[in-house]
Amino acid sequence: MEIADWRKKIDELDEQLVTLLSERAAAAVAIGQLKAKSSSPIYEPKREQAVFEHVRRINPGPLSDAQVQDVYERVMDVMRALQRPQ
Amino acid sequence: MEIADWRKKIDELDEQLVTLLSERAAAAVAIGQLKAKSSSPIYEPKREQAVFEHVRRINPGPLSDAQVQDVYERVMDVMRALQRPQ
Repeated sequence: MEIADWRKKIDELDEQLVTLLSERAAAAVAIGQLKAKSSSPIYEPKREQAVFEHVRRINPGPLSDAQVQDVYERVMDVMRALQRPQ
Repeated sequence: MEIADWRKKIDELDEQLVTLLSERAAAAVAIGQLKAKSSSPIYEPKREQAVFEHVRRINPGPLSDAQVQDVYERVMDVMRALQRPQ
């Protein structure tokens, strides 16, 4: 496979990634609404730690566990922003 | 659905996300090897711009386009690191 073929494959993966990321965001919005109803805090460090441990544990490579967590730190940042009242 | 149910759904989405992210990383490694063979630069701003435009264009929400790009900036950072010779 040449670079152009790999890039086509990456574009297809990105379409699936954006779909899943959006589903994850919709779930975060739903959780944000439940938290607002019960006056629970948006930032829950224990839950975020559990998410990081989960993704590190299931990481098959070639990314290092630290790199997967790096990506997820950004994911959690935007999810938290989404849960804040506009 | 309660918070625990949404979190179970999120954990399932994370398993799919990590799988896709790893496939994307494997493709980046393959591209890195092709670039090394042809002495091409690892950082290709035009291609990165095209990736950002693509993910913004296909973003269905509820994340803003800027938030999707924020996540992808981190994704591209780790992919670039993976292409560098160890």
